Amino acid sequence: EGLASPSSIRAGVDMLFIVLCGVLVFFMQCGFIMLSVGAVRRKNAKNIILYILLDATFGAVAWFFFGWAFAYGPNPNASSKFIGAGWFVTYNLPKEEYVNWFFQYTFAATATTIISGSIIERTKVIAYIIYAMLVTGFVYPVVAHWVWSCDGWLSACLDSPLLEIGLVDLAGCGVVHMVGGIGGAVGAAIVGPRIGRYDASGRALAMPGHSAPFMALGVMILWFGWYGFNTGSLLGIVGQETMVPHVAIVTTLGAAGGTLGCLSYSLLVEKHWNVVNALNGALAGLVSITAACASVELWAGLVIGYIGGWIFSGCSWLLTYMKIDDPLEAAAMHGGCGMWGLWAVGWFASPSLMGNDRACGVFYGGCGGWLLGVQTIGIVVIAAWVIVLMAVIFGALHLMGILRVAPDEEKAGMDHSYHGGDAYPKDQQVADGEPFTTT
Amino acid sequence: EGLASPSSIRAGVDMLFIVLCGVLVFFMQCGFIMLSVGAVRRKNAKNIILYILLDATFGAVAWFFFGWAFAYGPNPNASSKFIGAGWFVTYNLPKEEYVNWFFQYTFAATATTIISGSIIERTKVIAYIIYAMLVTGFVYPVVAHWVWSCDGWLSACLDSPLLEIGLVDLAGCGVVHMVGGIGGAVGAAIVGPRIGRYDASGRALAMPGHSAPFMALGVMILWFGWYGFNTGSLLGIVGQETMVPHVAIVTTLGAAGGTLGCLSYSLLVEKHWNVVNALNGALAGLVSITAACASVELWAGLVIGYIGGWIFSGCSWLLTYMKIDDPLEAAAMHGGCGMWGLWAVGWFASPSLMGNDRACGVFYGGCGGWLLGVQTIGIVVIAAWVIVLMAVIFGALHLMGILRVAPDEEKAGMDHSYHGGDAYPKDQQVADGEPFTTT
Amino acid sequence: EGLASPSSIRAGVDMLFIVLCGVLVFFMQCGFIMLSVGAVRRKNAKNIILYILLDATFGAVAWFFFGWAFAYGPNPNASSKFIGAGWFVTYNLPKEEYVNWFFQYTFAATATTIISGSIIERTKVIAYIIYAMLVTGFVYPVVAHWVWSCDGWLSACLDSPLLEIGLVDLAGCGVVHMVGGIGGAVGAAIVGPRIGRYDASGRALAMPGHSAPFMALGVMILWFGWYGFNTGSLLGIVGQETMVPHVAIVTTLGAAGGTLGCLSYSLLVEKHWNVVNALNGALAGLVSITAACASVELWAGLVIGYIGGWIFSGCSWLLTYMKIDDPLEAAAMHGGCGMWGLWAVGWFASPSLMGNDRACGVFYGGCGGWLLGVQTIGIVVIAAWVIVLMAVIFGALHLMGILRVAPDEEKAGMDHSYHGGDAYPKDQQVADGEPFTTT
Repeated sequence: EGLASPSSIRAGVDMLFIVLCGVLVFFMQCGFIMLSVGAVRRKNAKNIILYILLDATFGAVAWFFFGWAFAYGPNPNASSKFIGAGWFVTYNLPKEEYVNWFFQYTFAATATTIISGSIIERTKVIAYIIYAMLVTGFVYPVVAHWVWSCDGWLSACLDSPLLEIGLVDLAGCGVVHMVGGIGGAVGAAIVGPRIGRYDASGRALAMPGHSAPFMALGVMILWFGWYGFNTGSLLGIVGQETMVPHVAIVTTLGAAGGTLGCLSYSLLVEKHWNVVNALNGALAGLVSITAACASVELWAGLVIGYIGGWIFSGCSWLLTYMKIDDPLEAAAMHGGCGMWGLWAVGWFASPSLMGNDRACGVFYGGCGGWLLGVQTIGIVVIAAWVIVLMAVIFGALHLMGILRVAPDEEKAGMDHSYHGGDAYPKDQQVADGEPFTTT
Repeated sequence: EGLASPSSIRAGVDMLFIVLCGVLVFFMQCGFIMLSVGAVRRKNAKNIILYILLDATFGAVAWFFFGWAFAYGPNPNASSKFIGAGWFVTYNLPKEEYVNWFFQYTFAATATTIISGSIIERTKVIAYIIYAMLVTGFVYPVVAHWVWSCDGWLSACLDSPLLEIGLVDLAGCGVVHMVGGIGGAVGAAIVGPRIGRYDASGRALAMPGHSAPFMALGVMILWFGWYGFNTGSLLGIVGQETMVPHVAIVTTLGAAGGTLGCLSYSLLVEKHWNVVNALNGALAGLVSITAACASVELWAGLVIGYIGGWIFSGCSWLLTYMKIDDPLEAAAMHGGCGMWGLWAVGWFASPSLMGNDRACGVFYGGCGGWLLGVQTIGIVVIAAWVIVLMAVIFGALHLMGILRVAPDEEKAGMDHSYHGGDAYPKDQQVADGEPFTTT
Repeated sequence: EGLASPSSIRAGVDMLFIVLCGVLVFFMQCGFIMLSVGAVRRKNAKNIILYILLDATFGAVAWFFFGWAFAYGPNPNASSKFIGAGWFVTYNLPKEEYVNWFFQYTFAATATTIISGSIIERTKVIAYIIYAMLVTGFVYPVVAHWVWSCDGWLSACLDSPLLEIGLVDLAGCGVVHMVGGIGGAVGAAIVGPRIGRYDASGRALAMPGHSAPFMALGVMILWFGWYGFNTGSLLGIVGQETMVPHVAIVTTLGAAGGTLGCLSYSLLVEKHWNVVNALNGALAGLVSITAACASVELWAGLVIGYIGGWIFSGCSWLLTYMKIDDPLEAAAMHGGCGMWGLWAVGWFASPSLMGNDRACGVFYGGCGGWLLGVQTIGIVVIAAWVIVLMAVIFGALHLMGILRVAPDEEKAGMDHSYHGGDAYPKDQQVADGEPFTTT
């Protein structure tokens, strides 16, 4: 095995931890595919598979050419607090930064994928590719630069951070989930509801997905990957090794709380045990706890998650009422709970975990309210950035006439119209020794 | 990267190993969902998804409030060999214990989930939630305390362990699988067979699950997670790094042996290549090797697994004959092979791996038979504990009339009766450009 | 946590890394199952599940008895450059080698599983078991010995390696993918096309698989596992920690490039967004980059993957034209892109990553062309070895009359003919409160 210095071994351990967590986050793409496939109608199953695959691939290309450069590249100009500007095409990228490139790529791809759920079943492939590259290549990287690079104006590691605290967003309630969820809301509003989603009197009709088991599979894969998402955001394990299970436990309790929150809502409002809502609840809890998981005590995970379940349910009702048709409810989930999660830090952050006299949650006295202030500023600014940019992007695609498919294509299904046929070919629908035939 | 002491780096490595294994064990919940969905009839698919999701969530709540406290909390009283009594609600829990809390939670949830398979397709949601909390919060923790806390009367790390050896149950043939499997057997016996499982003459009728691919997916995810289950139970990697691949190899050979055992049974008895049985065989082998995987030579994995395949098949036949209707065959799998796995230690334990002159398997001379004695005592006592408590729990639920759904609800399917509709909505069953309609 | 020497900690870290990567590679079996299930017709779904499960189990047995011994066992004889000859049945195997046994087992099983895709839907179980044991036990181990053991004549770590370089095949374009893919091509040619694949005029008819979502699931699991496949092949992380994300990024870009390559082909030739082809493209890119991922700059991943997408598409066309019917297109994917990936090293290898003045890619001047020469020799010799041996194996099975099922069995479907019934029982096809009945 040979000799190795402690610092070299330490570098290996932290590297293993971060790369592994990045791989888990990448696997969330698989979770999103299965969740989305299950949540759409059968005639659009291949379509959503392609869209998420394109996120992962065009996202990698966009990240390679300029996304990473805008997020983390060195910028010698006055704009450095706003945007990075170096290491394009990984040119001159130091090897020490490779791990961050990979880890952050998986987060960027996640943000983009979230949007897909809101606009699926009626959006053109070409529009999808264009906005996916713009989100992974520019919209997301700028927010990541603000919050997670040490140059960004919202960053906690800036020499002189905002209100001497900087935004607390460990794994990206704002950077990832708000970007994806609010981007999805804007997209769903501009692309318009699916045909048949609202009846003549404006009442919403249920459009259940075609496979609850695929949805469950997707949710469980996402939950699994979320352990990498949240713990990996500690960016190292040596020297802070007890924070890793801390984050893992809060994440677990957040998911549990979210499930209970959504189940409570279903039982009170819908009067039955709604399985799909329970699954969504687990995700709502996970989103809600993503910013705070290293800054709050264990019990707070359960509380923040539970409230997140109700916030998801409320946002879902509100968006449906506003005729924003979001097949995956991504806007309510990632937008609504993302905002809640960022704000929850200002309420629940424990002084013993913050290490900054000026920063603690309102429930601990608030330490002057600065933390809640920073978190509120972060929510407002990120939301504004995403709304404006995504409105421009989706608006331009709409004006160019390349955003939405034709009504007959939509009715026939994207798979029939664009992808050469059904995800489950008709002559393969029934078989028991003899193939089924329609003639 | 900065400086770090070797002991700090070591703590980081072991932490990474255990948290990661815990995450893999958590992912087994996804495996159980997919296996169970595939193994039940289409009309109950959403029901089993909800039940396993509730395990993970209510289980986390129960574990948070008192399960962990009963299993691993410090107990200053005379009852300390029987039960823990501290750190309720994680109050005063030292940060060093966080990793154990998380790792052990994933095991507790596994034990509870196992039971779901035995009583599915006819059990009420409310009964499910009650027993899930009691199992994760009390039945399981007490057994975990006996065997895995260093205070427990069966523990090998007690100052003066039972027969100077203590029970050998590395990853929980007794603690996890017997608790789940025997609990399931008791539950299935009390809740009674599904309508239509036995004909008028008492003959069992096949009730195949609705999707073999989902079953295969579940089994492969479980096998994947089992590497975390077994290797993680070493509770550290530094200083015992060659034991990790040892355990991984024995686990692999155990699964292979179990598959071969069940395939042999199918070919001899059923005269065809039964795929579902082969999949069950892999799991039977994995369960069988869970106690012994660090105590036996590599070849023994193959042998113990192969015998486990036959034991599963035999138990499965016996339970069917006894009219205990277990849709997932969880009782035969986890109960039968769990007992076998615990006992197998007494037969196959290699002196070179035990490090205790008094402890070795019968095939190596037996070292006086003490080890086989301890393992036998463990089987008997754990079985008795589980049978009595689960009979009380399920019996009480039965007497209260909240255990089993009404016959018409059962015939209609749980999804229709309780969950607002089918897992695969009917108008989504066939699609090829045009949605299928029943009118 | 107590004391531990740096060398002991280092051993723990590298062990964790390699075992974990092995577990990820094992999980690729799950990916292959789901991809294959989706790609075959409904009537053969259980059959392919069984076949891949048998790979994992009979493969483990064959590897245990002699595969490992032929690949990595010490051989005191003159044949040592050609084959290993020690440690049969793991007899006398040093504990330090356990990790390699496990890691390499997962690779051996992968090679064998690849073949299954080419011959599925018409091959007998017994033939499958025989060739699976021969491939995992002999055909694959010999190639692994040549390239990856330090005794092998193609190995780069031989005292005097071929052309003073030795074959560069980090994770097995040649050792794993060519063995599997070319083996599959030979098998598909000898077993002959499925009934109905070609019409009376010899024109190929499409035989789409029954579930695109299962294919997507399989591909994403494979991509996930591929990070273990490629990074784990570095065989350690301490001291080369920045190579791990290097490999992960090149792998990501390879997959992205492959997807783009196949999408380009589909748009140009088929004139629609072919989702299945895009999924195959991701895998084609991953195969293509498997040999070179530690020897090329990041951008080269994108280029090699993109070309790989076209090579897959071309090989697929060619094999169909040659009437070699390969349901999973495993021959084009793993055979074609495996050869391309091995050759690509000779074109793209970066001098700064090779550490050998004689070895660099043609695009960097070629350093005398020795590297391209070694890679070309490797391709030719491995292809010849696999073609000859697999022709003998499949030819013998054919002559013995145990290779292919009877035409009526094939038409009825393997599940009906051999496995006791359909993967989705007919009376479970439709349910909405009331089970569907065919009478």
